[in-house]
Amino acid sequence: MANYVFGVDIGGTTVKIGLFTIQGELLDKWEITTRTDEGGRFILGDIAASVKAKAAEKAIADDDIAGIGMGVPGPVKEDGTVLKCVNLGWGIFNVEEELSRLTGYTVKAGNDANMAALGEMWQGGGKGHTNIVMVTLGTGVGGGIIINGKMLFGVNGAGGEIGHICVNDEETEKCGCGNTGCLEQYTSATGIVRSANILLNTSDKPSKLRNVQYISAKEIFDAAKEGDEVAANLVEKHGEALGKALAQIACVVDPEIFVIGGGVSKAGDILLDTTSKYFAEYAFHACRQTKFALATLGNDAGIYGGAFSILNV
Amino acid sequence: MANYVFGVDIGGTTVKIGLFTIQGELLDKWEITTRTDEGGRFILGDIAASVKAKAAEKAIADDDIAGIGMGVPGPVKEDGTVLKCVNLGWGIFNVEEELSRLTGYTVKAGNDANMAALGEMWQGGGKGHTNIVMVTLGTGVGGGIIINGKMLFGVNGAGGEIGHICVNDEETEKCGCGNTGCLEQYTSATGIVRSANILLNTSDKPSKLRNVQYISAKEIFDAAKEGDEVAANLVEKHGEALGKALAQIACVVDPEIFVIGGGVSKAGDILLDTTSKYFAEYAFHACRQTKFALATLGNDAGIYGGAFSILNV
Repeated sequence: MANYVFGVDIGGTTVKIGLFTIQGELLDKWEITTRTDEGGRFILGDIAASVKAKAAEKAIADDDIAGIGMGVPGPVKEDGTVLKCVNLGWGIFNVEEELSRLTGYTVKAGNDANMAALGEMWQGGGKGHTNIVMVTLGTGVGGGIIINGKMLFGVNGAGGEIGHICVNDEETEKCGCGNTGCLEQYTSATGIVRSANILLNTSDKPSKLRNVQYISAKEIFDAAKEGDEVAANLVEKHGEALGKALAQIACVVDPEIFVIGGGVSKAGDILLDTTSKYFAEYAFHACRQTKFALATLGNDAGIYGGAFSILNV
Repeated sequence: MANYVFGVDIGGTTVKIGLFTIQGELLDKWEITTRTDEGGRFILGDIAASVKAKAAEKAIADDDIAGIGMGVPGPVKEDGTVLKCVNLGWGIFNVEEELSRLTGYTVKAGNDANMAALGEMWQGGGKGHTNIVMVTLGTGVGGGIIINGKMLFGVNGAGGEIGHICVNDEETEKCGCGNTGCLEQYTSATGIVRSANILLNTSDKPSKLRNVQYISAKEIFDAAKEGDEVAANLVEKHGEALGKALAQIACVVDPEIFVIGGGVSKAGDILLDTTSKYFAEYAFHACRQTKFALATLGNDAGIYGGAFSILNV
C-alpha cells in the first residue's frame, strides 16, 4: 500500500501543491504559477512536472504514491470532466484522464469548494463528522457538501453552489453570475462591504467606519466587536442572510455540521454566534440543533481535500 | 436469488402493501387499517401478519422474498431508527430491526416522501435518472432526494424536507411546523386554496371561483385553464413560489430532474409550465436546463419505492 499522496488546489494565479502521508500529515507544501495563457494548456503539464520533481527529490517511488487529488475553480462532474473554468481558460475535457496520462498516477478532481469541504472533514473544523456543509466566505461565497463522507458533485458540477441561492427579490444590482439577489451579494467579504457603503451613504448615523477610506470585512467585524452601532447592525444583517440561507439548506440535505471558512470567517465567534442565532430562528424543528464550527485549515483546506479524495474511495 | 419483494407505505389511516417481482412488476396490492391506538404498537405486527399471509396465499417460499421496504410518515435515520411519527403514535425505535424480527425478512425503512422519490425513479416519472428531487404537492409539501441512486436521509431524518424552506418573511400565519412563511403554505393543495381565499376577499375582481362554495386546488387550476384571470394569477404565483424554491434547491444538490407529484400535480402541463418558467428565471446558470416531469405512479409511488429500497443496495 502506498504511503504518500499529493493534494493540488488550482487557483487563478497560483497552484498550491501539498505532499501528505496517507495518515493526513502535511510533509511539504509549495506553489507554482498558474499559466493561464493559451487556454491554460500548460497548467496540467506544470503540475505533473512539479509533483514528479518532488517525488524524485524525496526519493519516493511511484508505487508509494496513492495518487493526486485536485481542486479546480469551476464545475467538475463526478467522472472528472471540467465544464468550463473561465479563470483558467479551460473548456470542456476530462482533467483526471489528462493528468493521469501525464503522471501515471491515479487522479481525482473536484470543484475547489467541495475539495475544501473534504479537507475540513479530514483534518479541520469538520473532523469527526461525515455529513458536512462547508461555506467559504471569501471574495465570493462557495459551498461544498459532503454526504456520508462523499462529495456531492451535482449533475452539472454545481452541487453546493450555495452562493447563488436567491435571497432577495428586491435587489437591482447584478451578481457576477448574472442573476440578482444571490447570497454572495450580501455575505461574501465583498458583499458586506457593499452593504456597508450603501448603509453609510443612506444614513448619517455616526460610525468609526466613516473614517476608513477603503472599508474591508475585517474592519466591519472589528468595529462591531468594539460596539460600533452601524457595524453591529451590518454584522447582524450578515448573520441573518447567512443563517436563513443555511436553514433552507438544512431542509434539503440536513447535515451534522456547518463549517464556515474563507477570509470573513477570521471574524471568529461573532460570526458563528449571529449566524447560528438566525439559523435557529428559521430552521425546521428537526434540524435546529445542527452544529456550527469555524474552518481551521485556511488556504490549505483545498490541498488537504485533494489528498483525501484519493484515499476516501 | 429471490424473485419477489414487498413494498409497504404506512399512512395515518391505512397501510398500503404491494407484492412485486424484482423486475418491478406490481403483482398484487392491498391495504390494511393503520391501528394507531396504544402508541401504534400493533402496526408492525399487522404488517408482518399481512405479508406472511400473502406469501402463504401465493405459495412463495421465504427464501424467494428479497425483503420488505417500508415508507414511514415521519423522519427516519439511515440505520432504520424512526425519530417520532406523531400520526402513528410512535416514539423513537428501530423499525427495521423490529419488523425484521417479526418476519425474518430483510427490512429497509425510509421517510415516505423519500421512498416515493425512489419509486418514481424506478418505475415512474424519474425513470432513467439517478439524481432526482421529487416534490409531492398534497395537503402538505413533501420532498425526496435521490443522489446517485441513493436516498438522502439527512442526519436528523429531515433530508428533503423542502416544504419547510422559508420563502416569505412577511407571512404572519403559522405553518403546521410552527415556523412562518414555509413553501408548504403557498404551494400545497391547502396552500393555493388559502391564497385564493385571501385574494378573493381582498379584491373585487370577477372570477368564477366566487361561485364555488368550497374551493379546491383542482378548481383553481381548471379555472385558470379556462382563462379565469384571478385563477390564472393564483397559478402564476404558485409557479413562482415553487419554481424559485426549486432553483434554490438546484444550487444545493443540482439534480438531473424534478419530478412533481401529489394531488396538485393532476393539474398537468400548466403546473410544469409555470414552475419551470420561474425556475429558469431564478436558477444558477449551470442548472438552468434541469428537466421537469410529472410523477406517474400516484399513490403507489411509496410501495414501489419501498420495494426498490431492498433491491438497490
